Amino acid sequence: MTSDLPDFSQGVAFVEGRYVPAREAKLSILDWGFTRSDVTYDVAHVRDGGFFRLDDHLDRFERSLAACRLSPPHDRGAIAGILDRCVGLSGLRDAYVAMVCTRGRPRVFGSRRPADCDNLFTAYAIPWIDVIPPDVQARGAHLYVASVPRVAPASIDPTVKNYHWGDLTRGLFEAHDAGADTAVLLDSEGFVTEGPGFNVFIVRNGEVLTPDRGALEGITRRSVLDLCALTGVPARIAPLRHEDLLQADEMFCTTTAGGVMPVARVDSHIMSNDAPGPVSLRLKQLYWQKHAEGWHRTEVNYAAAGTMPAV
Amino acid sequence: MTSDLPDFSQGVAFVEGRYVPAREAKLSILDWGFTRSDVTYDVAHVRDGGFFRLDDHLDRFERSLAACRLSPPHDRGAIAGILDRCVGLSGLRDAYVAMVCTRGRPRVFGSRRPADCDNLFTAYAIPWIDVIPPDVQARGAHLYVASVPRVAPASIDPTVKNYHWGDLTRGLFEAHDAGADTAVLLDSEGFVTEGPGFNVFIVRNGEVLTPDRGALEGITRRSVLDLCALTGVPARIAPLRHEDLLQADEMFCTTTAGGVMPVARVDSHIMSNDAPGPVSLRLKQLYWQKHAEGWHRTEVNYAAAGTMPAV
Repeated sequence: MTSDLPDFSQGVAFVEGRYVPAREAKLSILDWGFTRSDVTYDVAHVRDGGFFRLDDHLDRFERSLAACRLSPPHDRGAIAGILDRCVGLSGLRDAYVAMVCTRGRPRVFGSRRPADCDNLFTAYAIPWIDVIPPDVQARGAHLYVASVPRVAPASIDPTVKNYHWGDLTRGLFEAHDAGADTAVLLDSEGFVTEGPGFNVFIVRNGEVLTPDRGALEGITRRSVLDLCALTGVPARIAPLRHEDLLQADEMFCTTTAGGVMPVARVDSHIMSNDAPGPVSLRLKQLYWQKHAEGWHRTEVNYAAAGTMPAV
Repeated sequence: MTSDLPDFSQGVAFVEGRYVPAREAKLSILDWGFTRSDVTYDVAHVRDGGFFRLDDHLDRFERSLAACRLSPPHDRGAIAGILDRCVGLSGLRDAYVAMVCTRGRPRVFGSRRPADCDNLFTAYAIPWIDVIPPDVQARGAHLYVASVPRVAPASIDPTVKNYHWGDLTRGLFEAHDAGADTAVLLDSEGFVTEGPGFNVFIVRNGEVLTPDRGALEGITRRSVLDLCALTGVPARIAPLRHEDLLQADEMFCTTTAGGVMPVARVDSHIMSNDAPGPVSLRLKQLYWQKHAEGWHRTEVNYAAAGTMPAV
C-alpha cells in the first residue's frame, strides 16, 4: 500500500463510488434501506488471503436482489472486483466482506413508490470477528431457546438475506438475561429455525440434522452438508422441534462469521459432559482443513489493489 | 436565518450533536440500527408553524425506547428542544419531524451484545409530503389487499414503531403491479391490520371502525376517534376481516404524513360512486379545522433557532 492512502487497516468500504476507511462509510438517514429496511446483502469471508465460496455468495446475492426487485448499478463482475479491491486495500488476510444494496431514495420528489428509487450499492471488508467468541466456542456455547417466535417466512422470506432482526434481537436479550451466550428461535408452530446470524445443527445417534424451515440457506450450512457427504457422515435437512434440541447428543452452529461453532448447552440440557462433542469438533477441524487445502478458494489480488488509484 | 448558515430550506437534521442539511445527514453503515434494523423512531408533524400532539409522539417514542431497551443520550426535554430547533432552523411551516434512536455499535470490539452498544440519537425536519398524494386523496385512493401477511405481533410488535417494512414493501409492489395506489395487509388469520405508513378505517351503516390488531396505535387514528367522540359519530376499535372492507360504505386511511385520506376503491369494490365518502370528508375537514383552531398545538420557536449557533 502506498503511503498516500488513508489508514485502511481497520477495514475498507466502497461507498458512492469511492474507497474509504470502513469506519467513515455512511448511508443517508433518508435511504429507504434504513427507513424501511428495504435492503438485501450478503457476507463472504476471506481466510488466509483467499475468499471462500465467493461464487456461491454472489449467486445468493443475485437471487436476493431479484426477490427484492433491487438493481445495483454494478454487474456481477464489477461487484466481484469491488469486493476484491476492498480486501486488497485493507491488506486484511482474514476478513468479512459485505455486499449491500439499498433501495435508495425516490428520483421523483414525494414519491412513495419503491420502483421510483435509484438503488445504491455499498461494500466493505472488515477484520474477522467470530459471532461466538473463540473462547466460548472452545468450551462449547450455551444456547437459549427464545420465547419470541421467528418472523414467519410468508411475511419475510428468511432465504433472502435481510436486516429484519427485531425478533432475533429480542431473542438475544432473553438469552443474555438468562446468562446464555446466544439464542435460537422457534417458529410459531414450535419448529426450530435459526439464531441471530447462524444456522443450527444437532447430532443424534450419529446422524447430523439441520432445520428444514424458517432459516437462511447458509453457505456454511451447505459446506457442512458437503463435508458430511465427503466423509460418509449421515446428514439430513429435517423438521426439528424444541424437544429434539433437548434430546440431542451434540449441537453446533454454522455461520460465515465463525464457521462451525460447537454448543455445550441448550437451555438446561448439557451435552458431551458440558463440552464440544466429537462429531462437531471433527466437522470444525475438517472445515478449516479444507480451507487450508484451497477448497472453493478465490485468491485475493492484494498486489493489484495497491497499484490502483484510491479513488 | 442569518446568511452564514448552510441551506436548510430542504430540511435540517441533528446528527452526532450537529445541525446539518437533512440531505447530508448520514449514519454509519456499521450501525446496528441499519445492519439489524435495531432502531425505533417516531414522526410528529408541524402544520402552519405548530407541532400537533407533540407530547403524544414523545410519550409513544419513550414507550418504544423502553420496549427496545434503547437509551438515547438526551432526555425528553432535550429531545423536544432538538426537534423544535430542527424545524426552527429549516424555517419550514409544514414539516415532518422524525426522532430516531439506533442501537449504534459495540463499545467492546467484537461484541455481539446489544447491551454493549452506545445508542445514537438522530432527528430531522423535512418538507411535508403526503403518503397519498393530494390529487389521489381528492379522487379517493385505490387500495389493494395484499397477499403477503403482515408480520405477526408476537415476532415484531407493531405498536413499537419500527423500520421492519419488508412485508409492507412487498405489499406495495403487489398494489402497484395491480394498478392500485397503495396496499393494506391482513394478518395470517385474515384480519385487517394496516398499510405502509397508515392505519385504515371503514364506515358501515354510519359507524366508524378501525382494526383492533396488527397495527400501530397511530396518533392520527386516535385523533379521528377523538373527533368522532366530540361530534357524536359512533366509532369503535374492532376486528375487521377482508370481507368487511369489501362491504364497507366508505373507507379512509390515517397517518401523520397526510392526516385523513379518503379511499374510493378497495380491490374491485367501488364506494360512494367512486369518490371520497361523506363521513370521510367530514372527518378530514374537521381534522384540519381543529388544527387551525390550535387543538393540541405546540408553537415552533422559529425566532430562537435563528439566534442560536448552528453547530
